[in-house]
Amino acid sequence: MTAEDTTTTRVAVIGLGSMGMGIASSLLRAGFQVNCFDISPDLLTQCAQEGAVATVSPAEAARGQQVVFSVVVNQSQTESVLFGSDGAAQTMAKGGVFISCATMAPDAARDLAQRLEVIGPHYLDAPISGGAARAARGELTVLASGSEAAFTLARPALAAVSTMTHELGSEPGTGAGFKMINQLLAGVHIVAAAEAMAFAAKQNLDLDRVYEVITGSAGNSWMFENRVPHILTGDYTPLSTVEIFVKDMGIIADMARAERFPAPLAAAALQLYLAASGSGHGREDDAAVAKVYAALSGATLPRPSCQDGTV
Amino acid sequence: MTAEDTTTTRVAVIGLGSMGMGIASSLLRAGFQVNCFDISPDLLTQCAQEGAVATVSPAEAARGQQVVFSVVVNQSQTESVLFGSDGAAQTMAKGGVFISCATMAPDAARDLAQRLEVIGPHYLDAPISGGAARAARGELTVLASGSEAAFTLARPALAAVSTMTHELGSEPGTGAGFKMINQLLAGVHIVAAAEAMAFAAKQNLDLDRVYEVITGSAGNSWMFENRVPHILTGDYTPLSTVEIFVKDMGIIADMARAERFPAPLAAAALQLYLAASGSGHGREDDAAVAKVYAALSGATLPRPSCQDGTV
Repeated sequence: MTAEDTTTTRVAVIGLGSMGMGIASSLLRAGFQVNCFDISPDLLTQCAQEGAVATVSPAEAARGQQVVFSVVVNQSQTESVLFGSDGAAQTMAKGGVFISCATMAPDAARDLAQRLEVIGPHYLDAPISGGAARAARGELTVLASGSEAAFTLARPALAAVSTMTHELGSEPGTGAGFKMINQLLAGVHIVAAAEAMAFAAKQNLDLDRVYEVITGSAGNSWMFENRVPHILTGDYTPLSTVEIFVKDMGIIADMARAERFPAPLAAAALQLYLAASGSGHGREDDAAVAKVYAALSGATLPRPSCQDGTV
Repeated sequence: MTAEDTTTTRVAVIGLGSMGMGIASSLLRAGFQVNCFDISPDLLTQCAQEGAVATVSPAEAARGQQVVFSVVVNQSQTESVLFGSDGAAQTMAKGGVFISCATMAPDAARDLAQRLEVIGPHYLDAPISGGAARAARGELTVLASGSEAAFTLARPALAAVSTMTHELGSEPGTGAGFKMINQLLAGVHIVAAAEAMAFAAKQNLDLDRVYEVITGSAGNSWMFENRVPHILTGDYTPLSTVEIFVKDMGIIADMARAERFPAPLAAAALQLYLAASGSGHGREDDAAVAKVYAALSGATLPRPSCQDGTV
């Protein structure tokens, strides 16, 4: 898409991690003018080099804007972006839309939406899925819920950053609910992949053949197919970290407890993410859960072909 | 494939459940002459009506045959087929191959192979995957290991029943090992699907939309995509029963304990299959694990659109 294809519009992107940077890049490519902000000066500079306008705070990024993306990690950061000192809630256009991409519990999304909409702006509960590579290509999936007014304002910008925006309902919280179902499955499937591969290693099966067989069989999952190559190459360079799932499975555990819903698989998976983090792998790729299984069982996992002594 | 495409050969198929019947049908279509046996007279009659020769025992089905398929449920039944009174081990051709399709622990497969090969015939450890519909179409996946002699004898018949035969090694037990890895993942993924869908129901999310969203997202699995429609329609007519996974997750639990491999997800999944069976759903489709979650949480799952009072 080129600038000619869209009405040139200014938007704000607050939070420039791998997902936010990809969103900013996609918006720039689509002809939007972008105000950006991140607490990291390096990320802010990088985004400015791509053509965005660097600003000094969420308040300044959002000032007068109709469309504000918040691409931070959790509820707490989203709350700071909106309502912290130098927050965006008071500076963005009263008739604008705040597009909240963080993963959080539905109740938390509803709470933030109510607090913002009292001030004026609309809130679109819009958690995203797809990973850094797809974010960079403008190919995210968005699980969105909010008022028709919020959607009307947000659609052109969402079209620039995603290939699939699910419009899931008129109330903030529904998007979050769908996202948590996805995270429950994704989080369990990563641990299942780690458990299965370490079990195969313990039996001295050919792990490359296991990957080949499983990806063509009924045992396959999106996460098995995507994460097991990290185990096979012994490369735990983080694409998405263990800590992300410590957070998300923790949200699920809290939700399930509040709702009196026993979730034994999600609960077990959380323990494995905690063990991975507790044993020093929190900042590694989430496939590093396999290292917990290796440590507990004596299974031998592949090592990187180029040893650099830091693994 | 027509009769002209293959050297007409006689084979035996022992065990005519949904998988064995599909294998017999596929062999008949491919031009093989088939001796069949099952302890169920009805299944035996059905197979004869498709063109096979009904026999009165494994021994008679296998008598003089170079290729004998055993398509029973577990190690114990396979042992009976081979070594029970009227077993196949003493009657099949000494230079023939016994193709064992049951899911069992690798040690069990190795034990049966050794006992058979002392007598003479080759043993192909050949667990199958794909379900009844693909079995009927000759589109199974076979996870096979055994001697080159065993493979040489078995390949023409395997080509008639499968679209993918993985040749995984020269020792019986390796096929079984791969199959158990697949079953670990498949069994965990079914329970994860049930947990996620019941959790979504507890939150009053639109379950059809959940299916649509998840099947296009990172939370997807082969089993989620395949089994959740049973939950959505409230139709637990068994395609594969809860009891199958009580068995298979039980094998995994036994293997993991013997190997000192902690497998918390597989262990938790086994408990859910036990609960589904213990609460009366053992003969229903394995998606009925969702009923355990509903019972424990108060979540309301879809009911069949045509109520017949027997659900």
